[in-house]
Amino acid sequence: GINRSFIPVKDEYREVYHDLTQIYKRKIKPLETTYNFEGFHSGPLTDSDILAKPMVLLLGQYSTGKTTFIKHLIESDYPGSHIGTDRFVAVMGGSESRVIPGNAAAVAADLPFRGLDRFGQAFLTRFQVSQCPNSLLDSMTLIDTPGILAGDKQRIERGYDFTKTIEWFAQRSDLVLLFFDSHKLDISDEFKNSIFALKGQEEKVRVILNKSDMVDQQQLMRVYGALMWSLGKVIQTPEVMRVYLGSFWLNRPPNVFEDCRALLDAEQADLLKDLRSLPRNAAIRKVNEIVKRARLAKVHAYIIGHLKKEMPAVFGKKSRQRELIRDLQGEFLKVQQIYSVPAGDFPNVTAFRQSLEAYKFENFAKISQPILSVAEEALSVDLPKIMKRFPQHNPLLELSQ
Amino acid sequence: GINRSFIPVKDEYREVYHDLTQIYKRKIKPLETTYNFEGFHSGPLTDSDILAKPMVLLLGQYSTGKTTFIKHLIESDYPGSHIGTDRFVAVMGGSESRVIPGNAAAVAADLPFRGLDRFGQAFLTRFQVSQCPNSLLDSMTLIDTPGILAGDKQRIERGYDFTKTIEWFAQRSDLVLLFFDSHKLDISDEFKNSIFALKGQEEKVRVILNKSDMVDQQQLMRVYGALMWSLGKVIQTPEVMRVYLGSFWLNRPPNVFEDCRALLDAEQADLLKDLRSLPRNAAIRKVNEIVKRARLAKVHAYIIGHLKKEMPAVFGKKSRQRELIRDLQGEFLKVQQIYSVPAGDFPNVTAFRQSLEAYKFENFAKISQPILSVAEEALSVDLPKIMKRFPQHNPLLELSQ
Ligand SMILES: Nc1ncnc2c1ncn2[C@@H]1O[C@H](COP(=O)(O)OP(=O)(O)OP(=O)(O)O)[C@@H](O)[C@H]1O
Ligand SMILES: Nc1ncnc2c1ncn2[C@@H]1O[C@H](COP(=O)(O)OP(=O)(O)OP(=O)(O)O)[C@@H](O)[C@H]1O
Ligand SMILES: [Mg+2]
Ligand SMILES: [Mg+2]
Repeated sequence: GINRSFIPVKDEYREVYHDLTQIYKRKIKPLETTYNFEGFHSGPLTDSDILAKPMVLLLGQYSTGKTTFIKHLIESDYPGSHIGTDRFVAVMGGSESRVIPGNAAAVAADLPFRGLDRFGQAFLTRFQVSQCPNSLLDSMTLIDTPGILAGDKQRIERGYDFTKTIEWFAQRSDLVLLFFDSHKLDISDEFKNSIFALKGQEEKVRVILNKSDMVDQQQLMRVYGALMWSLGKVIQTPEVMRVYLGSFWLNRPPNVFEDCRALLDAEQADLLKDLRSLPRNAAIRKVNEIVKRARLAKVHAYIIGHLKKEMPAVFGKKSRQRELIRDLQGEFLKVQQIYSVPAGDFPNVTAFRQSLEAYKFENFAKISQPILSVAEEALSVDLPKIMKRFPQHNPLLELSQ
Repeated sequence: GINRSFIPVKDEYREVYHDLTQIYKRKIKPLETTYNFEGFHSGPLTDSDILAKPMVLLLGQYSTGKTTFIKHLIESDYPGSHIGTDRFVAVMGGSESRVIPGNAAAVAADLPFRGLDRFGQAFLTRFQVSQCPNSLLDSMTLIDTPGILAGDKQRIERGYDFTKTIEWFAQRSDLVLLFFDSHKLDISDEFKNSIFALKGQEEKVRVILNKSDMVDQQQLMRVYGALMWSLGKVIQTPEVMRVYLGSFWLNRPPNVFEDCRALLDAEQADLLKDLRSLPRNAAIRKVNEIVKRARLAKVHAYIIGHLKKEMPAVFGKKSRQRELIRDLQGEFLKVQQIYSVPAGDFPNVTAFRQSLEAYKFENFAKISQPILSVAEEALSVDLPKIMKRFPQHNPLLELSQ
């Protein structure tokens, strides 16, 4: 079964994630909180941000088999799947089967969905989390989405910006699966807009030409060709998008065509390989992101500490702060020289200047060598050690996956 | 065999073509020569223009199997096929096997290649006609072309404008086959330019993804997908171009993949159907062109006859001619009213005015009712009668092809 092949993945990265949360909390988060990182970049990461499973976003016209694909992967229904097809469902692992409604899910500290409240009630009442115990769901979270209809009616009636929500999920996803139906190829304007919203994240996107055994081989070739023809026009990258020809049922329908079975089986095997590499790739991506964030927090600390140092002890604080803000570019240059920071590591001057307006520089913290040292240790020792657990291009490792 | 299936086609349209040359020569050509049609549009058609077989242009990167495809169709070599692959070869039917060099071919009255001399010696020495007795070649002429290499070297060394020659052949062709190689997909800039040169004639173009049995089924799908992806970007029409997956050998190579044989056979059958419909479609197209030309010649006669009538008998010829040329738009309007000609049938005023400069209006012929009447008869009786021999959407006829 599919599920069986996901069992070992679960434990493989548990230790990595555990270590990552510890390193972040002990060695990087103090640097962030000491130097007001939140006001310039983003709030500190929670455990659940780091521990969040890799996310797979399913997207497509209505009735292309998205929900059935999820059932096929988890080899069962998911809780609340009968409720309707007009909603976003985060299908996640959990110790028991339960449904968490959108409003509750968007405030739960242990779920990675805070931020969804920006899309309003109209969206939140159409969002739910479905948890159930399942070995595949221990490795990843699947986001089922409402099928896109042709025409404007649906778009107007929704009451929330569909494309924007897709963008939100896509940015947080490790894989985006675009679903098409072999016996009813259809790319509506709204679907096109959703595809446009994936711009810049093309390397995450895969296409599934589903229900491939509902047509004969020659028809399948025509549909597949037409799909590639249209996608080539919509997606502006020269790299060809990977399309999996397949048919993913929970219960095999009667009278399917068998003339491409070998091909479809090979394609399904490739897709599963793609899915199985997700936890590893997602873990690597997460380590990468923490490294990026730590470097940013370090430069940030230098800048803030430097501005503090430049402030007078008693008189003329206001005018000196104005001066520093005006000459910010020059101050960046000084920081660059004093601490030997690469120029490319500095934040955008204009945005930084704007954020500075909210603060009194005299209240900033001084450069603290102990806090900077532990962050430096995280960057030079702890995080590289974690990266070493993912040997690149290790053929044995590739084979075992 | 393939050739066998072409035997009945040969005689089917012989009568149509014979009648068409007779109608043109007796009823339309007199109208053209009487009213100087040649100076405004194009010289009178010869029998060989009308009798020319439908032409199929083969185009593609080097070594994609264009020449082998021709050998596959005619089930043998063609005369002079060993000479080299850097030339254009018109492979035509004929009572005996012979090669006609480019210079001779471009002046032969019984060949449809007058006009090729505009591309100069560099081209003509790279052009030849290869005739041989063959039932398929009784139905159509195949144009083999030199394979396109990647890079600029070939383009510079040719000494003639490749894209322009492709345009010349494409305009006169009824079908353009673009060849790609499944195990070496390659679209060079020059090939892209050749494809751009087909703009507006997309409905004539078919693609052959050749050597499809040199790769396994999954690889074939990847290559086919990549081809459609790229073609969708190059060709600006939304209609998907028909791609035939196939492998066309004279002698089957060893070790070919057999996993798509049924598909490739079905595709080959479709392609042959496409080729077999050529003579019929080409014949319809020819009747259509003669009808268009006859309507144009009729309006032309009205205009010339009208201008002649507007000229003074003795004095002030020059100034009157200048006046008529200046007011040409007004004179067109008069002709439109006097002879009830639809406005859309009139030629472009500016171009017509320019052509008029070469003539003395007093030498134009007067309106001749007998000449116009026979042309009218061709348009209202003879040509429609020929069209009736091609019933549209007659399922029995479609089946018999
Ligand atoms: N591989 C398949 N082969 C044939 N039929 C399928 C396949 N997958 C799903 N179907 C059928 O297609 C219909 C729609 O399936 P499903 O509800 O999974 O699609 P969906 O994309 O989730 O639709 P919606 O956009 O409405 O949520 C159902 O009737 C289902 O049985
Ligand atoms: N269907 C096929 N399967 C495998 N090999 C093929 C096939 N068709 C042709 N070839 C091989 O490919 C090579 C090139 O074939 P061919 O000369 O017909 O191509 P071409 O397009 O005419 O090349 P050029 O552009 O040089 O004129 C030859 O070695 C031929 O045997
Ligand atoms: Mg669904
Ligand atoms: Mg050749």
